[in-house]
Amino acid sequence: MSLVILGVDPGSRITGFGVVHVNNGKIEHVNHGVIMMEATQDFPSRMTELGSAFREVMDKYKPHHVVIEKIFLGKNADSAFKLGHARGVIMYEAGLGGAIVKEYATRSVKKGVTGSGGASKEDVQVILKAMLSLKTISRIDASDALAMACYHAFELKKLATLQRAVSL
Amino acid sequence: MSLVILGVDPGSRITGFGVVHVNNGKIEHVNHGVIMMEATQDFPSRMTELGSAFREVMDKYKPHHVVIEKIFLGKNADSAFKLGHARGVIMYEAGLGGAIVKEYATRSVKKGVTGSGGASKEDVQVILKAMLSLKTISRIDASDALAMACYHAFELKKLATLQRAVSL
Repeated sequence: MSLVILGVDPGSRITGFGVVHVNNGKIEHVNHGVIMMEATQDFPSRMTELGSAFREVMDKYKPHHVVIEKIFLGKNADSAFKLGHARGVIMYEAGLGGAIVKEYATRSVKKGVTGSGGASKEDVQVILKAMLSLKTISRIDASDALAMACYHAFELKKLATLQRAVSL
Repeated sequence: MSLVILGVDPGSRITGFGVVHVNNGKIEHVNHGVIMMEATQDFPSRMTELGSAFREVMDKYKPHHVVIEKIFLGKNADSAFKLGHARGVIMYEAGLGGAIVKEYATRSVKKGVTGSGGASKEDVQVILKAMLSLKTISRIDASDALAMACYHAFELKKLATLQRAVSL
């Protein structure tokens, strides 16, 4: 099984992304980066910029699965509302590109990747670098996205193991 | 001056739209309708359906301006969060289609169209039908969108009158 997974950490100013390949159960890093929207632009224009840039990412990597952080509404309803716009744009383009969209809570991803749901972004980066044999992850904004892609790969592997166990 | 204005009332289940032409200060109804997303579909797929359907609306009417309801976050943060996704998709496609995006608060639109900020949807419909010489407005969901398009046309007319006054 060869699968392309694109993890996305959406934001209305900075959107991180990370791409991994899963080849016969082995996770390989492909690329990661950020889409930055100009702060001086009005909000609707930023959504157009985000969508257009994300379409380029979709076209380049052609992911089978797109993984987005699941949001729990906290105290800051206003920033969650803004974030919702960016998530909508990502979901739309992911679907247009034929990908299946999955959502995971950050806590599950951190726990799955580092062993602790309360791990810091820096902890996540250290583990990811070791796991994917990377010297650097260019932006901290991209490491959450990369972590999501890896976590989804783990979940798929677990599922595949379960399926094999059932079919024995 | 001939201008196409598309009003949109976004929703993650039903999105209303209304199109008017402004020709030499006269507002003419072009069309109105709703985009309905299947409730059985998962949320990300609904965003893809919404965006694709809205792109068809953009392609068909080629609006110069797209007008969206401005949201004030009330008690229901969860529905505002969902609505944010739909708004993001609309803003993205509106920008892709080359339109300028404007936002107005519902209260301003109702006051501008009916004279009262507290007018009911039904009141808005009655006034719109009279104003645009329509026998019916097929869906109540579309009348808010149509009201937004008309209100924006009023605002542009006010602006044009002011500009003329200044240049005298």
